[in-house]
Amino acid sequence: MDVEEALRRNRPTAWFEPDGITLSREMIEELIAGACQAPSDFDLQPWRFVVVRDQERKEILHQCAYRQVIVREAAAVLIVCGDTRGHDRVAEIVAEKVEQGLVPAADAPRVEEGVRSAYEVSDRNRLLLAARGAAAAATALVLLATGWGIATTPMVTFSEDAVRRAFHLPDRFLPVFLVALGMPSTSRPQPVRAARCPVARVVWHEDGPG
Amino acid sequence: MDVEEALRRNRPTAWFEPDGITLSREMIEELIAGACQAPSDFDLQPWRFVVVRDQERKEILHQCAYRQVIVREAAAVLIVCGDTRGHDRVAEIVAEKVEQGLVPAADAPRVEEGVRSAYEVSDRNRLLLAARGAAAAATALVLLATGWGIATTPMVTFSEDAVRRAFHLPDRFLPVFLVALGMPSTSRPQPVRAARCPVARVVWHEDGPG
Repeated sequence: MDVEEALRRNRPTAWFEPDGITLSREMIEELIAGACQAPSDFDLQPWRFVVVRDQERKEILHQCAYRQVIVREAAAVLIVCGDTRGHDRVAEIVAEKVEQGLVPAADAPRVEEGVRSAYEVSDRNRLLLAARGAAAAATALVLLATGWGIATTPMVTFSEDAVRRAFHLPDRFLPVFLVALGMPSTSRPQPVRAARCPVARVVWHEDGPG
Repeated sequence: MDVEEALRRNRPTAWFEPDGITLSREMIEELIAGACQAPSDFDLQPWRFVVVRDQERKEILHQCAYRQVIVREAAAVLIVCGDTRGHDRVAEIVAEKVEQGLVPAADAPRVEEGVRSAYEVSDRNRLLLAARGAAAAATALVLLATGWGIATTPMVTFSEDAVRRAFHLPDRFLPVFLVALGMPSTSRPQPVRAARCPVARVVWHEDGPG
């Protein structure tokens, strides 16, 4: 499915058909591998995914997500996390750029230090690194799944602390979204997507409004 | 271009061909309209875009972005902002859901209040709302542009304060990315994209590592 169509068709599913579709471990890993090609800060790829397919684990996640029915009825739910220490990979990324002739070897330490200090400077910057990364990967994953005929519901309503504890996430990982995957119910009402804001309401040309 | 291919092909362009391509105001608005179909928290669509095509304005943005050459040589640069007050639209979104029979009219005030309070509770949650929104829209835009044969470079290295001041952005809008658009230079080296992490390094099944 082309990008335009995936963008037009994607929408949060309100109800899944329990047992409507089985998503194999391999299929979900393929989906994640595709999503990992999304762009990220300095190509750091600051994301992690917990794949929840087991019914008992889904019940636990359902509790963490304020008992939203969709979590227990989905074929699988991904906990999409951002990595607040994603910049720890910078040496690896810069080494590749040196090899490609994009960064002179002599400049590598300076470039590395620049990226590292951009994130070391504040919790806020590390939070943004993680949130941007998880959101880029989740968006790519939703579009890819839409193309494959798998319905998705990205969710932000859950207890971050409860998810961390129940799924043993070290502090550096920020759970940003739950993405529920499955087959839409045909017997329960599905949302027409909210109307899009007209472009004129979200675009300014050359200068902001302030 | 299908989603898989757009994901495989997208990569940050290191050098643009100055005057290599002209991007009309209409074409950029069409791109943005497509990107605005990305998923967002409660469908709030918490994003705004400043389109910078004028050469003098690009020079100003170039200063705000620590004189990165790519900003002045791009055909256009978008300042992709998140809206930390995106939840102010919740009444509009919930009214649509009531109309669609997804939320009983009697529950609307409670649902609205739930969404509003989720963001009113902390600066952190409003920052995450804005960052997630801008990242989702920027990712969709990059994939769409890739499909249209337009090269993109999403950037996070710029002075937030300088951009705010020079482009008159009210406090509620968080500039999250600059996305430079143009035609790749054929005479200067372009990056092969950083190697992707193997899936096994970013996925956990059923439980995290902690």
